[in-house]
Amino acid sequence: MKLEEEHSHTECRSSLIPVRDALDVIAGKWKLQIIISISKGNKRFRDIEKSIPKITSKVLAKELKDLEQHQLIKRTVSNTSPVLVEYTPTPHSESLEDVIHALHAWGTIHRKKIIGKQE
Amino acid sequence: MKLEEEHSHTECRSSLIPVRDALDVIAGKWKLQIIISISKGNKRFRDIEKSIPKITSKVLAKELKDLEQHQLIKRTVSNTSPVLVEYTPTPHSESLEDVIHALHAWGTIHRKKIIGKQE
Repeated sequence: MKLEEEHSHTECRSSLIPVRDALDVIAGKWKLQIIISISKGNKRFRDIEKSIPKITSKVLAKELKDLEQHQLIKRTVSNTSPVLVEYTPTPHSESLEDVIHALHAWGTIHRKKIIGKQE
Repeated sequence: MKLEEEHSHTECRSSLIPVRDALDVIAGKWKLQIIISISKGNKRFRDIEKSIPKITSKVLAKELKDLEQHQLIKRTVSNTSPVLVEYTPTPHSESLEDVIHALHAWGTIHRKKIIGKQE
């Protein structure tokens, strides 16, 4: 392998790792949708569920656990009766704002440019 | 459903659609990695393959076809002998720069904050 090529591969890999890390967390079908729903003010399980088309209770429960583990949502259980469970954003999920904004902007262009023409 | 709630759900859905459109295209394990590799100057199949850890030839071939269909890469076949096939970025893939930049920045923070502590 030529030195130049090797450099190009190394540079490429170091660019890939953080992008892959980010995608590992958020790339599933649901996680960003759940984070967006919670950031829009939906706090309770049923409200989050209703706000996301086609998600099932079982999937939502699993995804909420994963997100809590990655510190991307905060789960609060009140000591009232009946118990009230609420999900709220965290500083770490709020730091996804730029990612969501960039995806939103690009998705809008992509719909106009590609999806719109296929339909 | 209260009017306020209904508004919140509608607002939420309209924010979700473009983000979901974008994720549908780029969220797989490989597509963004391939786009990044090509944007870094890897043009030929074998170079792209070598630059992405763990990708197989079969998967790369399939992903390249999908990307071409979405106008996210351009496939050029030379009329030389032997034939030379090259993949290059398109204006549409270049418009993903902000998305990649935002994912890179957030992935770097996430590695420091969460992945680093798990290891």
